[in-house]
Amino acid sequence: MSSVSVGILGFGTVGTGVVHLLTEEQEKLQQQSGSHIHIEKILVRDIDKTRKIHFDDNRLTLDPDDILENPKIDIVIEVMGGIEDARNYLYKALKNRKHVVTANKDLMAIYGTELLQVAADHQCDLYYEASVGGAIPILRTLTDGLSADRIQKVMGIVNGTTNYILSKMNRESISYEEVLKEAQALGFAESDPTSDVEGLDAARKMVILSHLAYSVPVTLEDVRIEGITEISQKDIYYSKKLGYTIKLVGISELDDPYIDIRVSPTLLSTKHPLSSVENEYNAVYVYGKSVGETMFYGPGAGELPTAIAVVSDLISVVKNLNLGVNGHHIFLPKNEKKCKSPDSMKNQFFFRMHVLDQPGAFSKITSLLNEHGISLKKIIQEPIPNRHIAEVVIITHTVEEKLFELTYQQLKDLDVVMDVKNFYRVEG
Amino acid sequence: MSSVSVGILGFGTVGTGVVHLLTEEQEKLQQQSGSHIHIEKILVRDIDKTRKIHFDDNRLTLDPDDILENPKIDIVIEVMGGIEDARNYLYKALKNRKHVVTANKDLMAIYGTELLQVAADHQCDLYYEASVGGAIPILRTLTDGLSADRIQKVMGIVNGTTNYILSKMNRESISYEEVLKEAQALGFAESDPTSDVEGLDAARKMVILSHLAYSVPVTLEDVRIEGITEISQKDIYYSKKLGYTIKLVGISELDDPYIDIRVSPTLLSTKHPLSSVENEYNAVYVYGKSVGETMFYGPGAGELPTAIAVVSDLISVVKNLNLGVNGHHIFLPKNEKKCKSPDSMKNQFFFRMHVLDQPGAFSKITSLLNEHGISLKKIIQEPIPNRHIAEVVIITHTVEEKLFELTYQQLKDLDVVMDVKNFYRVEG
Repeated sequence: MSSVSVGILGFGTVGTGVVHLLTEEQEKLQQQSGSHIHIEKILVRDIDKTRKIHFDDNRLTLDPDDILENPKIDIVIEVMGGIEDARNYLYKALKNRKHVVTANKDLMAIYGTELLQVAADHQCDLYYEASVGGAIPILRTLTDGLSADRIQKVMGIVNGTTNYILSKMNRESISYEEVLKEAQALGFAESDPTSDVEGLDAARKMVILSHLAYSVPVTLEDVRIEGITEISQKDIYYSKKLGYTIKLVGISELDDPYIDIRVSPTLLSTKHPLSSVENEYNAVYVYGKSVGETMFYGPGAGELPTAIAVVSDLISVVKNLNLGVNGHHIFLPKNEKKCKSPDSMKNQFFFRMHVLDQPGAFSKITSLLNEHGISLKKIIQEPIPNRHIAEVVIITHTVEEKLFELTYQQLKDLDVVMDVKNFYRVEG
Repeated sequence: MSSVSVGILGFGTVGTGVVHLLTEEQEKLQQQSGSHIHIEKILVRDIDKTRKIHFDDNRLTLDPDDILENPKIDIVIEVMGGIEDARNYLYKALKNRKHVVTANKDLMAIYGTELLQVAADHQCDLYYEASVGGAIPILRTLTDGLSADRIQKVMGIVNGTTNYILSKMNRESISYEEVLKEAQALGFAESDPTSDVEGLDAARKMVILSHLAYSVPVTLEDVRIEGITEISQKDIYYSKKLGYTIKLVGISELDDPYIDIRVSPTLLSTKHPLSSVENEYNAVYVYGKSVGETMFYGPGAGELPTAIAVVSDLISVVKNLNLGVNGHHIFLPKNEKKCKSPDSMKNQFFFRMHVLDQPGAFSKITSLLNEHGISLKKIIQEPIPNRHIAEVVIITHTVEEKLFELTYQQLKDLDVVMDVKNFYRVEG
């Protein structure tokens, strides 16, 4: 049986999982891939650090070139994270005709198209299933499983931290700030949670998904991004009452030939398959012209789930190696990208406001909405005891976003309106 | 650009979908596969039959050898259904070195291992994604996406007809017989629904899934099968009350080195991801040693969803053809099969009975259960008005199946017990 040598860049959480699988599951991986897989070198930051699993010190290195320039190494696994160093290393690896497996969404969202081109030019494989949705094989589903269909919409709950926070806020009526603190203490949120809670992490994943769904060269600038930091218990309370769940959802839609991609807090009807995805789980919903609704669900992160995605990619690369067909499974964007103009976007909206509890107040609001042709789907009005104020919550029918935003501003100026809270998009 | 010729066996529902995609989506398929795909011949039963889509009469044939012995044809798509003829045709096609894509679960459940061996011997591809779960790419998920993991459990709602019937019974409090009649009128159930409602169709799909999950040569005889015909509204009523949903579930478990496969009505906790799969939708839940819980959801049947699975397989075959690597993606069983002995099975059980509403009756029942070491997880007792009878519903903790069945028989003989209804397995 042939033998294949791999070099691993990084020995953190995911790296540990990968090393664990490659050592503990040798026989299984040999059966699956047709080759013995041998770890030649691992790039680390500190050789002497105490690690969860034992690995021969002589095969740890501080010098990336021990891997990137090592003629013994066939395949490079990148699990170090970060952007610029990772890009330079993989660029070098591919130029040296080493195949690459990476779990790095930040890298692939920004330099994916460029790196895929370098891989194709050098007949190298570049697999990155682990970059989106942890163990959910969603990239393969888009490129292989549903390859005959025309994908029209991809919706993803692709950030575990924010889904954990919103699930807990939904269950326990605790404020965003409190839940975030608790999530940080439990390791479900980073000490600097910005990229998660502001939606950037999810946006990067939506870039990768959109590229494969529509075969267009999407960049991060194409994504409208809004985070979850403004969501209050009141928003959650009224959403539930109206039959919805608030989730941070990435939505990528094709309105041929235009695409529209956004990440934002979204009210999902409790009948939507995504609405029951709880805690740190991820799920990607794909709507295809012919297949209709499908959904793929699983753990979005974690040492072993992510490592399974990396090592399953590795098995594919080794199989390709044995068949001599590396570099033929690169999905470079084949279509031109046209982004939808913000002026033509339409959506349903949820918003709430405090109004004076006096005769005619509600009719002033509905008159304004009516003037702009905005019709209402659901309304709740609840008095706030002892304050002569009522809380009004509205879900509109589908309306042009631009028109809605204009009207929303005008509502603030009505004399009967005390304040208008944030608005959110509504699906289904 | 190269051109590839296909022959299609069958021009029914799925065949129509396949022909539709191959004619309407030529450009997209060319982009995906790298070749122009041309339909050379279609085997039909009646050339003159009126069809939903137009296709050149001269390329319809009544003679299978026009396809199987046709030197122009590279790939045979089998969408005719049935078992013996389909087997003989595909056997001949593979011996003539034609690659095969089939949607035929009955065939693959019975002759799968044999046909895969013939394909491997002749360096041919044999793809059959459409045979399980319609458009859900679940076979690829097991063979590629999760290839690095050790699958420990596969649970499937893989029969749309029974899921439609149970969903409707659950929503509308109508009897099984009434819902079946309605489903037949709407085309959701066959005029002879036996193979669906008795669980055989689901069992065949579980054979295919189990083979790929554990790489063992499973046969239909290895599956314990129970259908849904005995489920009553009372069963559904009490299940709901206790926090469960009754579904027809295929469960395939590995208790290394033993496997256990069954299809039976099962109470799923409403927290289980499968419990919210409604109507004609299918879903397959996969539990892997490293990835934990994943689930894949989509339409389980239908002209276009099934055709997408067939044509996505076709794209893979054409890509392999262009790379010269056909016959290298055959998953023949690599492990020995050991079935778990029925004596060692354990489960939780739900059952209900009518008992005399008199002092000491309930204690007689619990004494008997206690004698056998069966402990109770949930109990409901409801009096039946004006009849001095109570209905008692019990969910046990995990117990040996053999012991439970023995106790169940003894319960019938207690003087306070009037009757004991069917029992069902409980998950989670």
